[in-house]
Amino acid sequence: MLQRNFGNLVMAAAFIAGQWLAGTASAEPAAVNEQVPKTLGVVLYPGFEVLDVFGPVEMFMSLGTTKVRVVMIAEKAGEVPSGAGGDKAGAWSGPKVVAEYGFDNAPQIDLLMVPGGFGTMQQTQNAACLNFLRERVDKAEYVMSVCSGSAILAKAGLLDGKKATCNKQYYGLLTSNGPKVDWQPKARWVEDGKFITSSGVSAGTDMALAVIAKLYGEDTANGIAKGTEYVRDADPSNDPFAKETK
Amino acid sequence: MLQRNFGNLVMAAAFIAGQWLAGTASAEPAAVNEQVPKTLGVVLYPGFEVLDVFGPVEMFMSLGTTKVRVVMIAEKAGEVPSGAGGDKAGAWSGPKVVAEYGFDNAPQIDLLMVPGGFGTMQQTQNAACLNFLRERVDKAEYVMSVCSGSAILAKAGLLDGKKATCNKQYYGLLTSNGPKVDWQPKARWVEDGKFITSSGVSAGTDMALAVIAKLYGEDTANGIAKGTEYVRDADPSNDPFAKETK
Repeated sequence: MLQRNFGNLVMAAAFIAGQWLAGTASAEPAAVNEQVPKTLGVVLYPGFEVLDVFGPVEMFMSLGTTKVRVVMIAEKAGEVPSGAGGDKAGAWSGPKVVAEYGFDNAPQIDLLMVPGGFGTMQQTQNAACLNFLRERVDKAEYVMSVCSGSAILAKAGLLDGKKATCNKQYYGLLTSNGPKVDWQPKARWVEDGKFITSSGVSAGTDMALAVIAKLYGEDTANGIAKGTEYVRDADPSNDPFAKETK
Repeated sequence: MLQRNFGNLVMAAAFIAGQWLAGTASAEPAAVNEQVPKTLGVVLYPGFEVLDVFGPVEMFMSLGTTKVRVVMIAEKAGEVPSGAGGDKAGAWSGPKVVAEYGFDNAPQIDLLMVPGGFGTMQQTQNAACLNFLRERVDKAEYVMSVCSGSAILAKAGLLDGKKATCNKQYYGLLTSNGPKVDWQPKARWVEDGKFITSSGVSAGTDMALAVIAKLYGEDTANGIAKGTEYVRDADPSNDPFAKETK
């Protein structure tokens, strides 16, 4: 009844404070404020896929900036065009997202994330990108990829001997970038040590919630899913799209 | 067998062409190229929610630029910060997205979309935003909102007498912006004439696929869901979060 009668006031306060974390926003303010936030560094490149980035970023942002700070990084700081989903190779005419940092001045990255997208194949040939990933992997707590992003990690040699997965629609093409990787054809996401690679596009959101659960507990992950009205797949082996593997 | 043997070549060609539309990328090129693309205009504002924008945008972009061109619009063209999901009201320190157009020079918008986010309440008091929406609604084919975005449409008086929904966690606060709206407490999304309003954050992605199905057919919508490995909720009455309504 308390919740019913005062629901709107509580909701308004949470709304103003900017918290989607259903039911937990006011439960642990002291502990949260004492934490040093982790830095989630997302590597953008021309032709990145928008949902690969913003599905996971939505979930991490929902933790609040006292837990995770999100930074966008690209080879050079500035506006980075997403893939057009379009008609011409190289026509990266999708919405632009701002990279606050370049590879030369990016801060320490605790949670490193590489999205996929139609620009992936260019990055598998981009020494600057491959070297940046090689440099930053050692100091990262977790290294994530979404969709075709694992092909870039694979090309950098970072997944050799490890289990990993990727987008299922382009499975053959993508896995050819890592002949020494133990590719998994049926997995919503795969964890091997600090590397957590997800299947295509939307799978990244489930992977992000799994990482949040590892770091902050299942209740927190489920609270975020509830707050963002997201029907979570919490089982990495439940891959409805595995049958698409070619 | 043909598909198996030549699968990689077909996939590589589709990948290079930038198409997530599983199985249909090469099926209808002539007809697609003759279409005049519709313009999806997304209204950004400081403190918008990233997944409200990029869940639907991912799905519309997957149609390819011959069918839908996505443009980002804000009160003034330039970089627009998303909500921080964070600790302070007004601290819009989330990733920035570039608005190519301001309200003064935005092109004709066929599909108008208003996202939600913690910046919503400011926009319900922003005459420039409310007037822009009032001006553009008449010429739009469909007007969509995600999450708290419907509170802005409601405040502009555009939903009076119509069925609509919004985020369920902040249902009481948001619906107070439209006392003459026929708010629906249980709905993943609601269609009433040209207005299609979705429930919280992730529900926008299902709404977008429903609009794509209306415009281009169920097969196309399902093909995009498959290509983006998204488990679609195609039933607007299936609202797993309705129980959260306060």
